Amino acid sequence: MILSQMNKEELIGFKNETEALYNDFKAQGLSLNMSRGNPCTEQLELSMDMLDVFDDGDFLSRNGIDVRSYGLLDGIPEAKALFSDMIGVEDDEVIIFGNSSLNAMYWAVQTAYNKGVLGEKPWSKCEEVKFLCPVPGYDRHFKVTEFFGIKMINIPMTPDGPDMDMVEKLVSEDDSIKGIWCVPQYSNPEGISYSDETVRRFAVLKPKAKDFRIFWDNAYCIHHLTDDPKTIINILDEAKKAGNENIVYIFGSTSKVTFPGAGVAVMGASRENVEALKKYLGISIISYDKMNQLRHVKFFGTFENMCRHMKKHMEIIAPKFDAVCEILDKELTPLGIGSWKKPEGGYFISFNTPVGCAKRIVQLCRDAGVTLTDAGATFPYGIDPEDKNIRLAPTYPPIDELKKAMELFVICVKLAAAEKLLSEK
Amino acid sequence: MILSQMNKEELIGFKNETEALYNDFKAQGLSLNMSRGNPCTEQLELSMDMLDVFDDGDFLSRNGIDVRSYGLLDGIPEAKALFSDMIGVEDDEVIIFGNSSLNAMYWAVQTAYNKGVLGEKPWSKCEEVKFLCPVPGYDRHFKVTEFFGIKMINIPMTPDGPDMDMVEKLVSEDDSIKGIWCVPQYSNPEGISYSDETVRRFAVLKPKAKDFRIFWDNAYCIHHLTDDPKTIINILDEAKKAGNENIVYIFGSTSKVTFPGAGVAVMGASRENVEALKKYLGISIISYDKMNQLRHVKFFGTFENMCRHMKKHMEIIAPKFDAVCEILDKELTPLGIGSWKKPEGGYFISFNTPVGCAKRIVQLCRDAGVTLTDAGATFPYGIDPEDKNIRLAPTYPPIDELKKAMELFVICVKLAAAEKLLSEK
Repeated sequence: MILSQMNKEELIGFKNETEALYNDFKAQGLSLNMSRGNPCTEQLELSMDMLDVFDDGDFLSRNGIDVRSYGLLDGIPEAKALFSDMIGVEDDEVIIFGNSSLNAMYWAVQTAYNKGVLGEKPWSKCEEVKFLCPVPGYDRHFKVTEFFGIKMINIPMTPDGPDMDMVEKLVSEDDSIKGIWCVPQYSNPEGISYSDETVRRFAVLKPKAKDFRIFWDNAYCIHHLTDDPKTIINILDEAKKAGNENIVYIFGSTSKVTFPGAGVAVMGASRENVEALKKYLGISIISYDKMNQLRHVKFFGTFENMCRHMKKHMEIIAPKFDAVCEILDKELTPLGIGSWKKPEGGYFISFNTPVGCAKRIVQLCRDAGVTLTDAGATFPYGIDPEDKNIRLAPTYPPIDELKKAMELFVICVKLAAAEKLLSEK
Repeated sequence: MILSQMNKEELIGFKNETEALYNDFKAQGLSLNMSRGNPCTEQLELSMDMLDVFDDGDFLSRNGIDVRSYGLLDGIPEAKALFSDMIGVEDDEVIIFGNSSLNAMYWAVQTAYNKGVLGEKPWSKCEEVKFLCPVPGYDRHFKVTEFFGIKMINIPMTPDGPDMDMVEKLVSEDDSIKGIWCVPQYSNPEGISYSDETVRRFAVLKPKAKDFRIFWDNAYCIHHLTDDPKTIINILDEAKKAGNENIVYIFGSTSKVTFPGAGVAVMGASRENVEALKKYLGISIISYDKMNQLRHVKFFGTFENMCRHMKKHMEIIAPKFDAVCEILDKELTPLGIGSWKKPEGGYFISFNTPVGCAKRIVQLCRDAGVTLTDAGATFPYGIDPEDKNIRLAPTYPPIDELKKAMELFVICVKLAAAEKLLSEK
């Protein structure tokens, strides 16, 4: 029976039953974590052979530089070749960073903030700077812009990506809007892949601010959960066709390909952007860890092998996504509570509770020993205007624990929804 | 015969002879590089066993976190224990960074610039910000402050460290002076170790600006070139005695201990500083490469072993410093040209030419195939007011090549000095 169609008496009965189940769970003293998109140990084991690649004693990059030493600010050539394929740019349109694409994004914002973009006024000298933030989105993106005092504007997501009518209108009117955060493939947390039309509209965007940049965080570009994945079209190629290639900064990493703590991060952009950025980068560092770059290159060899490697990840984590969705379907669909969509890739399931229930559910779960991403985290400033979005991260826990955590989760959803409905009666 | 005592005719004869030798060298088509403080290949080989430390299959840090995954923003506990010993702080007074202490310094300046230090006004909001720069010094330090538009003031070096009378006077009068760059042990490029008195005077410094910080780049803290090294006293300990422990940020790295491209960088500071800094650090990155941290810990085990390891470096590079100084002594002392001092540690020999000759000498060397650090690089804005300081970096070339390069160098010094004297006759 649909929860919202229950009368008060039925609801009270339902709530009491659910509360009893909740208390049983609480008594079990669980301690489970579904808060972040962490690969599980089995996934880490997939890349162990990468640690032996230097058994050959060969430390020279293709251009003769010893990777153990200083030099090659923007990366070794073979890493540029490999990772430019991953993010869809040419070898001279890429910079290889350290282990963190978040750090590369932070640096790109910081550089624009303190020094400006291609000769434009530094953002710090502008009266106001704003970023568009498709919501729900990635909390760490929002923290970066918040750190620099950049005002964030929520943009609703549609099944095709951000609301492009709104994006186009805003950027064409307001030159204080300097950027937008995008996770174009398998968006965090909803798993939405931008449609061809959305990507094309981004590629030809003509913002009033010449120093507007799309921060295209293609974090999950090869992180598919189906055998026949639909990939997004190449934004830089599209932008080039329109003579608009400076519009986008592309980011990616192997954090969820090899090791989250010891992967390789990359940034792609037009040659003009890359040349300008490298001048600033050379102030902050001599070179990133080129041994780790070569480790990745020797381990994978080709981009095709990287994609094959990702299938092994899929085999490990796809069943976890299935398990989560099965429990949601079984327990919540009959009651008509909440909405979600099984993603075809990425690391998250975005769950929408009835309006005003997300915080309560996260709190209920925490009190019973299951940590979820904070409610509100998927919105700028941590404020979900409808208090309804919860990001579920199913990859890390072993499947038994995951099922346990999800059993608790659906109980908490039911309980909070019943409480809410009762409060409105 | 002392060059400056030659009459015009003698000088012309000397110059012609030297020019002939120079042209002979030029005809050899050399291509040697003495520009940067790079360890040589033999030194890199010393740390090769570090690549096998994970053969034990153990990836857990002491607190149970898998180093392959996310987490531990400020480093794994065992890396904190090891590297806090290296830079002379407690385990909870250290942050472990990536492969670059320059990057940590850049970040520390950037954070102060954009967000301020312990609640003080961000430097970017101050009308003017200045840094004191002991000269000659490290070019990459100066580039960082220049990047942020910070005005740099030259401070003369004495055999005991920076001119402390001048430092004390300036910082007590001018609250726009927010920092000073120091390489306290085996300074870059002069190899000067600060006296106990200098360190104590720094430790009790009471600048007018509450947010003044000493950027204490202890890059060469264990990089001795003698068997019986004199180390500097501990600035943080001294500062604590005076209740002044927030005054200093300490930096160090293993770039010249293990691998320049794949070492570990660290920052030490008071607990209050560290806690404040970590809040900002967490915006820019999730965690640095903890696998590399554990690699270092497993390889060294203890700080004592690190020091033993450094003796092997000394055995490789001390003869190179000897060779450079022998050639300078033999060729230039009898002529009374130039001044230098054999360092007891670090990576450089600072050579002072007659006033107005440094650029010419570097150019002469370059034209004959030997690349030196640019003249002027050891001063803020690349401007050596007397055009006399040249930084020699003897570690990288094989000793035969180094000798060859030095033979050319002394010829260029002689030629430039003779030209200069003739121009004044």
